Amino acid sequence: MSTLRVGWIGTGVMGSHMCGHVLARGFPVVVHTRTKSKAEPLLEKGATWADHPADVASQSDAVFTIVGLPDDVRETYMGPRGLLSAARPGQILVDMTTSQPALAKQLAMIAGAMNVFVLDAPVSGGDVGARNAALSIMVGGDRSAFETVLPVLQTMGKRITHLGGPGSGQHTKMCNQIVIAGTMIGMCESLLYGYRAGLDVPAMLECIRSGAAACWSLDNYGPRVLRRDFAPGFFVEHFIKDLGIALAETERMGIAMPGLALAHQMYLMTRARGYGRLGVQALTLTLEEIVRFEAGDRGAAGSV
Amino acid sequence: MSTLRVGWIGTGVMGSHMCGHVLARGFPVVVHTRTKSKAEPLLEKGATWADHPADVASQSDAVFTIVGLPDDVRETYMGPRGLLSAARPGQILVDMTTSQPALAKQLAMIAGAMNVFVLDAPVSGGDVGARNAALSIMVGGDRSAFETVLPVLQTMGKRITHLGGPGSGQHTKMCNQIVIAGTMIGMCESLLYGYRAGLDVPAMLECIRSGAAACWSLDNYGPRVLRRDFAPGFFVEHFIKDLGIALAETERMGIAMPGLALAHQMYLMTRARGYGRLGVQALTLTLEEIVRFEAGDRGAAGSV
Repeated sequence: MSTLRVGWIGTGVMGSHMCGHVLARGFPVVVHTRTKSKAEPLLEKGATWADHPADVASQSDAVFTIVGLPDDVRETYMGPRGLLSAARPGQILVDMTTSQPALAKQLAMIAGAMNVFVLDAPVSGGDVGARNAALSIMVGGDRSAFETVLPVLQTMGKRITHLGGPGSGQHTKMCNQIVIAGTMIGMCESLLYGYRAGLDVPAMLECIRSGAAACWSLDNYGPRVLRRDFAPGFFVEHFIKDLGIALAETERMGIAMPGLALAHQMYLMTRARGYGRLGVQALTLTLEEIVRFEAGDRGAAGSV
Repeated sequence: MSTLRVGWIGTGVMGSHMCGHVLARGFPVVVHTRTKSKAEPLLEKGATWADHPADVASQSDAVFTIVGLPDDVRETYMGPRGLLSAARPGQILVDMTTSQPALAKQLAMIAGAMNVFVLDAPVSGGDVGARNAALSIMVGGDRSAFETVLPVLQTMGKRITHLGGPGSGQHTKMCNQIVIAGTMIGMCESLLYGYRAGLDVPAMLECIRSGAAACWSLDNYGPRVLRRDFAPGFFVEHFIKDLGIALAETERMGIAMPGLALAHQMYLMTRARGYGRLGVQALTLTLEEIVRFEAGDRGAAGSV
């Protein structure tokens, strides 16, 4: 098979890095994004520009999309000049946005009627994973279509798993986010407790991080919180979107998730305080506003 | 310095293993526990029996206690025939029960007036850690007393950390439990979501456990839940005790911990359903009773 002609839509923090890796491995890429200036670095590296998603589809064998919200996915695929308006039989469309499992299934079904494949392939690993081509990619949809685009996915990620039919990539991503909702609350509350108890918090963190409390959030966000670094690896407002999708799915399934619901509320509080564009570790700031625990206040409760 | 004469009080699941390691390394041990029959295996290995905590104190240089609730700690130390009634100047008493930081401080203060040292040294690592002498031990209290008993602690644990003054061991253990409260909720809700979404749950678990959702709970309890193994490594009712202590401390400090409070409530629900003597992964059962997801029901919501 000749080299796949790649289409790319969405050049945000994640998409720019990911598309850059595809280009760097020699795939020809045609790109579109809402704000053309954001695609400039990719155009300089050899990508060609298309004015609409439909133009991307007509020039590509496989199109990869990573946009913002489920509504953006709908518009990109089903809008007036959307991908499906120009898709050809046998073409493969891969949505890497974290989005609704139900939408992923709907797109796969509509496209299937045209003999077009739509895969859902959300990613995990954040901006660092995107930059280092170390993303985890969770794929749902037709297996042979998955195998066709696998060489492209391999330029962006390390662990690429096909999990089943349409929607199973998005569902797996939801499982991932539900765990993180729990680890983030546990980590932020634990650090707050440690400061207020007057502990040597770095020593405490070092002590607990290799035992039964060990988790990626503690390892990666704990040290950032200690040095008051709330810069985004993963935005609060994106996490709110993901948790909201998961909550809607659980309601549809007829099940209840008290922990997930609480995390969603706590992140809504965090956004309401103006921290939506900070990283998810900014949940700490929300807890702090119950009682500040900056360096000067450490051990104000003075118990140790 | 001649070999420390060790006193030991408390021979439950944890204590029996721990005391066994001390004996195995050649320390002379005098033991007491509420139910003498539970000490028999240790007596057969060479420990000698004492009828009361006071008798243990009078025959030892350092006494280690690991009992049940804070009230048991109070009784063991301050009861009519408690340790402090027979303690001598220079003697070291080490409470390894997970208990109240405030009680640890009170005991250290009262004992200090008698020139007796009390250290708080709760452990993490569960029954497996106790059996394999791989516990993490978090120690608060006088540093020179800590150094004196360190050779004994080293027979039971791998990571032994002195964290500061009296109570700092207990506070660090609370930080540890607060993180675990979050990881357990996240893990159990994630698995429930996965089953109800109709995912291949082992494949999902394998996919997410090496990314940003990685945590000890997912690695250690996830597979047990998949094979419906709810046997205790760490009892639900002990976790309820720990979370209750942490909540009381946060209230005393004047701070709020919504996640910790929710976890406490969810584990109270789990105990109310009769699962108090199962392992902490039995939180799954409580969530399931909202909707069962045993093998036969997998994917009943049938979405993938």
